[in-house]
Amino acid sequence: MPNPSAAMLVIGDEILSGRTRDSNMHFLAGELTKHGIDLKEARMVSDDKVAIIAAVQELAEGYDHLFTSGGIGPTHDDITADCIAEAFGAAIDVREDARQILQAHYAQSGQELNAARLRMARIPDGAILIDNPVSSAPGFTLQNCHVMAGVPLVFQAMVAGLLPELSGGEPLLSQSLRVLRGEGDIAAFLSDLAARYEDLSIGCYPFQQNGAYGANIVVRGAEGSRVDAAMRELAKEMGL
Amino acid sequence: MPNPSAAMLVIGDEILSGRTRDSNMHFLAGELTKHGIDLKEARMVSDDKVAIIAAVQELAEGYDHLFTSGGIGPTHDDITADCIAEAFGAAIDVREDARQILQAHYAQSGQELNAARLRMARIPDGAILIDNPVSSAPGFTLQNCHVMAGVPLVFQAMVAGLLPELSGGEPLLSQSLRVLRGEGDIAAFLSDLAARYEDLSIGCYPFQQNGAYGANIVVRGAEGSRVDAAMRELAKEMGL
Repeated sequence: MPNPSAAMLVIGDEILSGRTRDSNMHFLAGELTKHGIDLKEARMVSDDKVAIIAAVQELAEGYDHLFTSGGIGPTHDDITADCIAEAFGAAIDVREDARQILQAHYAQSGQELNAARLRMARIPDGAILIDNPVSSAPGFTLQNCHVMAGVPLVFQAMVAGLLPELSGGEPLLSQSLRVLRGEGDIAAFLSDLAARYEDLSIGCYPFQQNGAYGANIVVRGAEGSRVDAAMRELAKEMGL
Repeated sequence: MPNPSAAMLVIGDEILSGRTRDSNMHFLAGELTKHGIDLKEARMVSDDKVAIIAAVQELAEGYDHLFTSGGIGPTHDDITADCIAEAFGAAIDVREDARQILQAHYAQSGQELNAARLRMARIPDGAILIDNPVSSAPGFTLQNCHVMAGVPLVFQAMVAGLLPELSGGEPLLSQSLRVLRGEGDIAAFLSDLAARYEDLSIGCYPFQQNGAYGANIVVRGAEGSRVDAAMRELAKEMGL
């Protein structure tokens, strides 16, 4: 049985303007690979209602899971929760369970649960809350869509709580070999190897270092003995 | 007149597996912002023909420009050029101008221009070459789609050569203020400010540092006097 598939949607103007370098997609990619869920696509859109809803609908329809980050804070540009509700045709309002979490948090820190902060308790009907051990305001899962915060520390904590709840498949095994040869010298052999090991993914990632050409060759697959066999052939061809 | 719009497509298994953290999208985002081209969307897909072609068609249709990175090397997993040709219905083969560039490069470095390397001279009919001052193998522009290498040094060099050829708009100006207050405390003011300055984009990006809550407030717009006016109101509200 193939592994579950997933997509990620990163929401926020700050990524697309180049102001902030996204780290959530890279973090999630690594965690999903370990968990046996195949991340097939990632998208980044700005804080634009039409763009968010269109992407959510397309990605939730196309993959087993959709993970989003960003846009669930208290300010006017935080429109993700409302967009998700609209994308799935769900009603949304301040929900009592989420309100209580926020109330307890702000009571403890001596801050006011004002109207802006209360927006973070807006949760679509039918959604399950995702715990936020860092700053309390919860994420949520609606159908196959997991909605999480953009702040990396919070995002990572939410993913850590969420992933054990999701069925994974075979974690993808990978081995790599770093060679100081130009890609063009090894391409014919790799092409032949890939054709003979169709169950594996064989990638070649070139680099230049101090003027020398090299490449990292990465062999990925679910079955360890097959990865080993391909790596042995590769090492032999490289004269190792 | 609004600025030209753009999308980026990052192609490659290594990004989605979490093995490599993409840097090309972040670099391009910053360069486009300076050049007055608005990056509206970014996507990352794996080395999968169907996924690449679908994304190229959708993004080239939806935006003024599409920039791609990755998948134009000599190995079997480098399928971008052929996918672009198919997406636009163009014929593709080894092109003489590209072949001559590679031949000169490999003659100089004493390497063989073998069949694998010759694949890098496969250029769709009607495309204009993009210069690669780092490792010679060219990128290309086909219609509104700019196809570049995935290796960051090469990608950056190609962007540097390409951007001056493209008409830009007003570079987006931005100013930011870092405040040590919770987002929820300033959200109501920011919402009102955003409503009164509809021509500006006002973003609020929270952080936590040593247990304290803070936020970077970023005001962006094409007109300097408007950005200044909003920033003055903001500074006054924050007691500065």
